[in-house]
Amino acid sequence: MDVDRKYLEDSIKQKINIIKDNRFLMDNLFLPLAKKLDMDVDEIIEIFLKKVDFASVYELSAYVEQAKMGCLGRKVDIDLGLCYLADFFKLIDRKKADLIRKKVVELHLLYNKPYKDALNVGKKLIIKLLREKNEKSC
Amino acid sequence: MDVDRKYLEDSIKQKINIIKDNRFLMDNLFLPLAKKLDMDVDEIIEIFLKKVDFASVYELSAYVEQAKMGCLGRKVDIDLGLCYLADFFKLIDRKKADLIRKKVVELHLLYNKPYKDALNVGKKLIIKLLREKNEKSC
Repeated sequence: MDVDRKYLEDSIKQKINIIKDNRFLMDNLFLPLAKKLDMDVDEIIEIFLKKVDFASVYELSAYVEQAKMGCLGRKVDIDLGLCYLADFFKLIDRKKADLIRKKVVELHLLYNKPYKDALNVGKKLIIKLLREKNEKSC
Repeated sequence: MDVDRKYLEDSIKQKINIIKDNRFLMDNLFLPLAKKLDMDVDEIIEIFLKKVDFASVYELSAYVEQAKMGCLGRKVDIDLGLCYLADFFKLIDRKKADLIRKKVVELHLLYNKPYKDALNVGKKLIIKLLREKNEKSC
């Protein structure tokens, strides 16, 4: 029993070390989560290893890419006030808001534009839409 | 025609001034939006006055309260990493994530707990859930 437990612990430690050598996973998943939750990064990795079903570091990385795209969209919503402007006050059409969000996320994640610059592109699109609507109603 | 336009402009200016006297609306809607979008606050107010259908400042305030509750939830999602933990990696049950988000929003907006402190309550709940799950699987 003790031998089994020791084997399991060693195996988890090895896996943790493999993950810690992977810069992408550390920078994009484990370090940000540890920081947000004030948790030790080893503990976070251990929880993932035990509970998340993935076959390889490659598979996990691909999934983190997807998660980044999805979760960054929510951050863009907050940072550009789209939640207020589109969802609540309907000053911007929801479909157009979706396109703006997508544009900002893609500029940052696919074209490596710094987040602030990508956000500025979104900002300009929003201001244009708000002004257009404003002029039309005069 | 010019008289009509002058009347309209004066009427909008008056309305803008009424809004600008309302601390709640300024602090919770117009100033944050102006800051997020780098727009002049008068312009934002004018766009709202022309395009958003509300009968009174009271009605607008009530709606802003609703929007604050809804939009803060999304910020909590980002700040606590719930988007990754619950939506993508299913380390936390979605219903429990909803309850944690609601708790943080209520503590801050209904019980006036500083946002950072409310977030800490959510953080502790998340860590407890992550550790429980972790232990169970050992």
